[in-house]
Amino acid sequence: MRFDPATLVYNDAGLIPCIAQAEGTGEVLMMAWMNQDAVTRTLETGQVTYWSRSRQAFWIKGETSGHTQTLIDLRVDCDRDCLLAIVRQNGPACHTNRRSCFYTSVRDGEDVELMQPML
Amino acid sequence: MRFDPATLVYNDAGLIPCIAQAEGTGEVLMMAWMNQDAVTRTLETGQVTYWSRSRQAFWIKGETSGHTQTLIDLRVDCDRDCLLAIVRQNGPACHTNRRSCFYTSVRDGEDVELMQPML
Repeated sequence: MRFDPATLVYNDAGLIPCIAQAEGTGEVLMMAWMNQDAVTRTLETGQVTYWSRSRQAFWIKGETSGHTQTLIDLRVDCDRDCLLAIVRQNGPACHTNRRSCFYTSVRDGEDVELMQPML
Repeated sequence: MRFDPATLVYNDAGLIPCIAQAEGTGEVLMMAWMNQDAVTRTLETGQVTYWSRSRQAFWIKGETSGHTQTLIDLRVDCDRDCLLAIVRQNGPACHTNRRSCFYTSVRDGEDVELMQPML
């Protein structure tokens, strides 16, 4: 069946969450939001493009930092209301310069930092 | 630092997205939502507990189906507005009886099914 971004389920703000996962390691890197045009641009350009809710603008991941995400595979979930992008991450995914945004673990009721900045 | 579920960032509906990832394989299984009490219950019981937006009720994953998610590790992202649960998944995670909800890939502009139901 032909993929049509209009058939995805967007929230009231017209957005759908997209999880980025590193190819190879399978590490979950981050979660951000896309609108319909961001989905289309991601597929057309092969560069993962989110919608920045704070800036209300397209956010080509890594455009400023160089920490780009090259799309390897885009997956859609059963309800069509969440995306999973398998990506080739260049450098850290997190704005804190950590490999992943999920660097804090809750262990025995405490916040524990699992990784240090790469840069 | 002591982990306090009240310090997480919830949306206007009081919810935070939680990604479930399989321990070992690293497969991303699903994404669902938690409210503050669901986060607390998940940590206290070790059984991943979401908030069902359709039923407006706690959703102890697998309570009916037996396809439970035992919590191995709970991670918080840099903005504290998204969770990652590393889980031991019993059986399929998806209500379609597939291992993961992300069984559809967009390849060359087509929806392609990557996996069949397990049951």
